[in-house]
Amino acid sequence: FDETQLHSQALIVDGENLQKQIDELATFSDTPVPSVTRVLYTENDVIARRYIKMLMGLAGLSVREDAVGNIFGRWEGYEPNLAPVASGSHIDAIPYSGKYDGVVGVLGAIESINTLRRSGFKPRRSLDIIMFTSEEPTRFGISCLGSRLMAGSEILLKALETTVDNQNISFVDAARSAGYAQEKNDLTSVFLKKGSYAAFVELHIEQGPILEDEGISIGIVTAIAAPASIKVDFEGGGGHAGAVLMPYRNDAGLAAAQLALAVEKHVLESGSIDTVGTVGILDLHPGAINSIPSKSHLEIDTRDIDEERRNKVIKKVHDSAESIAKARGVRLAEFNIINQDPPAISDDSIVKAMISASEELNLSHKLMISRAYHDSLFMARVSPMGMIFIPCFKGYSHKPEEHASVQDISNGVRVLALTLAKLSQK
Amino acid sequence: FDETQLHSQALIVDGENLQKQIDELATFSDTPVPSVTRVLYTENDVIARRYIKMLMGLAGLSVREDAVGNIFGRWEGYEPNLAPVASGSHIDAIPYSGKYDGVVGVLGAIESINTLRRSGFKPRRSLDIIMFTSEEPTRFGISCLGSRLMAGSEILLKALETTVDNQNISFVDAARSAGYAQEKNDLTSVFLKKGSYAAFVELHIEQGPILEDEGISIGIVTAIAAPASIKVDFEGGGGHAGAVLMPYRNDAGLAAAQLALAVEKHVLESGSIDTVGTVGILDLHPGAINSIPSKSHLEIDTRDIDEERRNKVIKKVHDSAESIAKARGVRLAEFNIINQDPPAISDDSIVKAMISASEELNLSHKLMISRAYHDSLFMARVSPMGMIFIPCFKGYSHKPEEHASVQDISNGVRVLALTLAKLSQK
Ligand SMILES: [Mn+2]
Ligand SMILES: [Mn+2]
Ligand SMILES: [Mn+2]
Ligand SMILES: [Mn+2]
Repeated sequence: FDETQLHSQALIVDGENLQKQIDELATFSDTPVPSVTRVLYTENDVIARRYIKMLMGLAGLSVREDAVGNIFGRWEGYEPNLAPVASGSHIDAIPYSGKYDGVVGVLGAIESINTLRRSGFKPRRSLDIIMFTSEEPTRFGISCLGSRLMAGSEILLKALETTVDNQNISFVDAARSAGYAQEKNDLTSVFLKKGSYAAFVELHIEQGPILEDEGISIGIVTAIAAPASIKVDFEGGGGHAGAVLMPYRNDAGLAAAQLALAVEKHVLESGSIDTVGTVGILDLHPGAINSIPSKSHLEIDTRDIDEERRNKVIKKVHDSAESIAKARGVRLAEFNIINQDPPAISDDSIVKAMISASEELNLSHKLMISRAYHDSLFMARVSPMGMIFIPCFKGYSHKPEEHASVQDISNGVRVLALTLAKLSQK
Repeated sequence: FDETQLHSQALIVDGENLQKQIDELATFSDTPVPSVTRVLYTENDVIARRYIKMLMGLAGLSVREDAVGNIFGRWEGYEPNLAPVASGSHIDAIPYSGKYDGVVGVLGAIESINTLRRSGFKPRRSLDIIMFTSEEPTRFGISCLGSRLMAGSEILLKALETTVDNQNISFVDAARSAGYAQEKNDLTSVFLKKGSYAAFVELHIEQGPILEDEGISIGIVTAIAAPASIKVDFEGGGGHAGAVLMPYRNDAGLAAAQLALAVEKHVLESGSIDTVGTVGILDLHPGAINSIPSKSHLEIDTRDIDEERRNKVIKKVHDSAESIAKARGVRLAEFNIINQDPPAISDDSIVKAMISASEELNLSHKLMISRAYHDSLFMARVSPMGMIFIPCFKGYSHKPEEHASVQDISNGVRVLALTLAKLSQK
């Protein structure tokens, strides 16, 4: 038995224990089961982080955290000077979402380490398991905050100096309250040099229906769709809902309603099934039944696997916002493209390693595109990247009904373990 | 000098002091000046109530409160067995509104008493100054809560047993925390018998631009438009904003946006300038940028001076809600007409008294319709009713820019004082 090599039969995942951990992590939530709400640097986030560090410790990993709370657990390889191989995901959860998004890629990666250890394997390159800070944009409106900063975003670095949440708490104060960012100016310490990792692989639920529909165990991601997010504010005259007659109104709420429908229209006009657009946030001010909205705020998410096509949608949405404002006599006070990220392409040799791993484990698999974005999108800027998808119930995600079976999760963990093993020996 | 008669020259209003009171009352607010936010039974509402009772005391009125916190200050007449004459309004203020709506009719009525006393007048019928509880629907979604209950609404009585605010605090618990509703089943004690008052007159800012535009001092209200309010809930599939492709969506947020625009369309179709409709509240759930809305909630206000025409709008909005739900594959989970009140007509003899008072005071005046509703709408069910309007800046209301000049307010108080004097002698 060559302990640097690995036989697929030796990879035994403790699925039952992994499910227990998933269920336990889900209880650290601001909303009751089956929903999960875990927001960056809140009490439940801090408790959940403690839980992850404990599991990393039990898996024999040496744990460190960076200045924004990205957590790293390292299994040192026998050639520790080589660039390590990494895997990881996030555990933050948007309001009223489910317990598998992100979590499978963190707890599953830790279990992949346990699996490799049990098999007797010893890695050549070190293996890092990463829990990324705030993949979800819930609190500060910034998605993939941790991985984006690791990837060296100077724009984000700058933005974090002035970013506040909707309670006007600054990012830095929030981070400090959770024990991070102790030195104000040390956030560049989060940056990773290009080449810091030899490979990065993320395990994740598909968040789409394809694998379940086709009865396939493993999705091998070849590209991640390019997301953009936009914040829009309209300002109008407001006034009393009884007293201001219709011709004298400049209703900021109706401008928002029109723009929401325009987003849908422009997305459908793209003609491609791959273009999507969503208005997930629409707030009216003052928000009283007998008051004409004087302000409205929308947050728009649009994505495509084709960056140019997506940017065309953004352009049309902007044109609509301007023409709606003009027609209604309201002011387009803000049209802010918060992020407009390019898509990411998986690394060929990682794709090959994932395919071989699936084949050796006799698991059906297919190449596919990720329509949701992930920390992998940003890790791709500093490391060769790949992603492993597993089926999930009806493609549901970001809601309490989100579910993946123990069997499918265990299959994913086995493919991840074997892929990490292969990549670590290179 | 006959002290039961009154000469218009003797009516001296202390406008400066009245303005001071208006400014002081505005500081009892949950939001900073110039905005006012004063919500039923909150700390600032309780403080403001204390302030009103103090001013009533200083005006020599004997104060009592009923079980929901309607406050009455009485100046006993020399024939105390006759039905009294009353005046009053509200001091609650919707979020981020102004300092004159309602307040002018409470502080102004108290000042009308001071004015009458200073003139040496003695009333035959007793005079009651009333501060009504929660004219605005802010906290419990029920407009004119105090006057509606005084008018004997059995429907409201029943509803209050189960009504909760958006923090799930029951009406009864909230009332108790403010010192009211001490005995659970005593809310029928709020009911007034028909004929309890010989007349009710409310002083109020116009909340429209007509008096200011035409340079007229006094509006004499002949009718109050009929308001209706509707709550609507849509429920859809929700899901991840990246992963769920457009054809598979059932977006409850877009259904809400469509209905908001349909409300505007149906109102405009009425063909009458007097028909208005507003969506002041539109909430999305879960309210995250990367989540397709799975639920939406709208609150719709529609009014007209023609009840039938308004009800036709409601019917069309209902039809639209159903067809939008069908087309989008979302569920119309609720379409609840919260109230659908008939209009109120002012009493002839009160209108005549208001006209005579204006003429004797040499103030320009015109007959007009109230497009906003008021506690007078409900007092009209138990008492002959009339309303006095004064000009306000650009017709603004329900926003911080709401303003009425000291001169216009003082004119309104003089007309009110003289009208109350006339009515109390009848
Ligand atoms: Mn997510
Ligand atoms: Mn995720
Ligand atoms: Mn009002
Ligand atoms: Mn009012």
